[in-house]
Amino acid sequence: MSKQQRTAIEPTREQNYAEWYQQVIKAADLAENSEVRGCMVIKPWGYAIWENIQKVLDGMFRETGHRNAYFPIFIPKSYFEKEAEHVEGFAKECAVVTHSRLEPDGKGGLVAAGELSEPYIVRPTSETIIGASFAKWVNSYRDLPLLINQWANIVRWEMRTRLFLRTTEFLWQEGHTVHENYEDAMLETKKMLNVYADFAQNYLAIPVIQGEKTEGEKFPGAVNTYCIEAMMQDKKALQSGTSHFLGQNFAKSSGIKFQNREGESEFAWTTSWGVSTRLIGALIMAHSDDNGLVLPPKIAPSHLVIIPIFRSEEERTEVMKLAEEIQAELKNCYFEDIRIYTELDDRDLTSSERNWYWIKKGIPLRIEIGPRDVASGTVMLARRDKEPRDKVPVPVTELKTAIVSTLSGIQASIYQKALSFRDENIVRIDDHQEFYKFYTPKNANQPEIHGGFAFSPWCGSVACEEKIKTDLKVTVRCIPFENQLEDGKCVCCGQDSKLRVIFAKSY
Amino acid sequence: MSKQQRTAIEPTREQNYAEWYQQVIKAADLAENSEVRGCMVIKPWGYAIWENIQKVLDGMFRETGHRNAYFPIFIPKSYFEKEAEHVEGFAKECAVVTHSRLEPDGKGGLVAAGELSEPYIVRPTSETIIGASFAKWVNSYRDLPLLINQWANIVRWEMRTRLFLRTTEFLWQEGHTVHENYEDAMLETKKMLNVYADFAQNYLAIPVIQGEKTEGEKFPGAVNTYCIEAMMQDKKALQSGTSHFLGQNFAKSSGIKFQNREGESEFAWTTSWGVSTRLIGALIMAHSDDNGLVLPPKIAPSHLVIIPIFRSEEERTEVMKLAEEIQAELKNCYFEDIRIYTELDDRDLTSSERNWYWIKKGIPLRIEIGPRDVASGTVMLARRDKEPRDKVPVPVTELKTAIVSTLSGIQASIYQKALSFRDENIVRIDDHQEFYKFYTPKNANQPEIHGGFAFSPWCGSVACEEKIKTDLKVTVRCIPFENQLEDGKCVCCGQDSKLRVIFAKSY
Repeated sequence: MSKQQRTAIEPTREQNYAEWYQQVIKAADLAENSEVRGCMVIKPWGYAIWENIQKVLDGMFRETGHRNAYFPIFIPKSYFEKEAEHVEGFAKECAVVTHSRLEPDGKGGLVAAGELSEPYIVRPTSETIIGASFAKWVNSYRDLPLLINQWANIVRWEMRTRLFLRTTEFLWQEGHTVHENYEDAMLETKKMLNVYADFAQNYLAIPVIQGEKTEGEKFPGAVNTYCIEAMMQDKKALQSGTSHFLGQNFAKSSGIKFQNREGESEFAWTTSWGVSTRLIGALIMAHSDDNGLVLPPKIAPSHLVIIPIFRSEEERTEVMKLAEEIQAELKNCYFEDIRIYTELDDRDLTSSERNWYWIKKGIPLRIEIGPRDVASGTVMLARRDKEPRDKVPVPVTELKTAIVSTLSGIQASIYQKALSFRDENIVRIDDHQEFYKFYTPKNANQPEIHGGFAFSPWCGSVACEEKIKTDLKVTVRCIPFENQLEDGKCVCCGQDSKLRVIFAKSY
Repeated sequence: MSKQQRTAIEPTREQNYAEWYQQVIKAADLAENSEVRGCMVIKPWGYAIWENIQKVLDGMFRETGHRNAYFPIFIPKSYFEKEAEHVEGFAKECAVVTHSRLEPDGKGGLVAAGELSEPYIVRPTSETIIGASFAKWVNSYRDLPLLINQWANIVRWEMRTRLFLRTTEFLWQEGHTVHENYEDAMLETKKMLNVYADFAQNYLAIPVIQGEKTEGEKFPGAVNTYCIEAMMQDKKALQSGTSHFLGQNFAKSSGIKFQNREGESEFAWTTSWGVSTRLIGALIMAHSDDNGLVLPPKIAPSHLVIIPIFRSEEERTEVMKLAEEIQAELKNCYFEDIRIYTELDDRDLTSSERNWYWIKKGIPLRIEIGPRDVASGTVMLARRDKEPRDKVPVPVTELKTAIVSTLSGIQASIYQKALSFRDENIVRIDDHQEFYKFYTPKNANQPEIHGGFAFSPWCGSVACEEKIKTDLKVTVRCIPFENQLEDGKCVCCGQDSKLRVIFAKSY
């Protein structure tokens, strides 16, 4: 290519990745910041993606025996104080409700009144409030396992926020389960991590690494935290889901006791696991390009836009007739297990304007229909994962079949692209200097651009973990389940190491 | 009947209606109170009913062109203060967030810290926060109508709470729309009231009266509030959904302006409308009996329970085989537009215990299968809306057809029963004394039991409305859309009246 191609999103990923991310969200009309500190407004196209995520995951949770319920948004301060590590982890950033009404302040305004005897915390996570119910629900081993999920809003008073990735309020699901023994609870913890990995890979088209968090990175109050880690296009890691083995910690603080098979009373074993609207951030950063959002068809709110083109009322009639016929034929049509939704965009805008509108929104397929197409019985089909001008002719009689197979093809292709990118950017590094060089930006204007994930030996000490974090802003993302056991020398201190772990910069 | 029949719920409706309501909820395991003031825990069976309500309504909102979005849970105090009537209506009972963290208090506990410069209110309704976004989204008449819905949790610091009917936190949907002119906004307001009435009647099987609220009962800040009112089995009214015509009030306070077709800038016209988890309370009180919950099949989480009965391992094998065959045959089976879900309850309990468990939960149909049924190829089918012992034999070969038609039959029958009850208890009363007698309890032990709805003339004065409220705890539930225009004498003051309205005691 001799000439620089114009792109719909400015700046490009190369020019300024962080700003590109904001501009993709704006161009696709997914969300916006509100005047409420750190809280976002999720706009219809963004919310429809979340609804699709919910629908698929909810089905997976049901198939694995979980049922939905709903617990109070407020957590009494006293509940919160029961688990020491837990309160330590969340007390620093939480919304505190202290009053129950507003009263005239005598200056024409209002002032908080009706002070509560005990402040309430807006839930930053629900282990303690759900634990209070579970303590009542569980009496005998016959009541176990208890497998509950909640879809809810969550508030954490984050200092630095970014749409979808880190917001004061976000939407999520939180699974909370109770089991008879260590083994069952551990099985559940890992089973749900697997559900998340399956969902990320097969629906979001994002390859993930499953592994365990280090002591320093685990959930406050958990015994073990497992996670799925994905690579974004700037080679940073995004933690995309977590599953916590809570041992008997929360059962003890909430009093979840049961009579076991031997007739003795003992504390139960619990788990919790969650994914959030952060997944939409992952989706954007994993697949989108310099023309805007790219959506895996299995999670797209709509799959195909038909763009009729006409210059006269006569042309309009014949073009709209074919457009409506095509739309009717695709009604109640599926690819794999996903229902196909279509748009017919006959707004009074040029075909180029309408094409770019939908390209930026990430709709997987586009068809333009003009009078010549009506005459020839062939339409041009364009894929969002190809160049905007790259179109293939498809006879109208074969269109339905082509759409069904192309949607599956796009899904597979987006996943493969992300997988190749990630695998190219995971490097086995054993040498200290090489490790430091890997994380040194090549270009001072782009301090965020670096080598990617390092799969390197670590001695397991907190000191080394901290030093690398301080020096490079790089952390242990996880101790992966696969290939982690290998003798070597710690990439930080050079001492003997038994583990190879995933290091990365992260969101 | 010579002998008093034993019922599963104690007390019965006759004995103590309010307590019966609590016991039905407990027996069906729908919800429970939490230790958080006035907040409930919605348990899986109750939450599944809410999910069904959501699914149907969401489809209706989509068909009428609405799209879902999500807005912040927190409302800055300053937003709240912009609309005078609105703040007046909600300031007296709201959760106020004043701090952003907890700090050690030096005595081993924690204390609220990080005071906010401006307090936030946990949304009691979202007109003001959604209005702030709409002001940015709407520029021209081409952006209108803007048709948005939100599914969310809501907090109102209610003084006296009751599961589902009135809780500090509840779940709801709130539609918010913006229009070019008075006519379009008024059409939308009434269209959505119609959607609610359609849903209440055709899914919840609850007949409703559509009408307008009086000045004193309308939504704070609205120009007109329309509502659907249902009669419960204690003859009290339950407001089951409201739709508000907001005129330009909120557009002015939020600054929602647009360029009209003449190129001039003007304030838009808005509406809002909502239903909540209160509908579950309506469902319980409209249909349930002294044996527990009765669910209209179209909203039931599950439709049929199969109860296998066996005494030996050999019997178990043959009975379970037939039970599983029946369950398999009903998979992916529909009645009307509703998918049929089934349960197979082979728990180690007597058949009577299992039957009563499901009767109390309101499952529409039950089948017991014993060895004799396997031999005869006929099973006994029991309907929840008939007496527990009332069963009809159905050949296994005809079971699927029988189930499909019986579910539709139960839906229709439950509605008819509620309709007859309501119509029998709406009385045209023109006389003052008769009106007062109608609302005087016949029995001192049951002060809540009274005549029902009075359809009576009202002069339209606030004084008469207030007097009747003070004297009898009776209010104007609505000015019904039908048959309201009729000359008469006010049932309170005896002056000329042009309107006949619905009076009732209410929840």
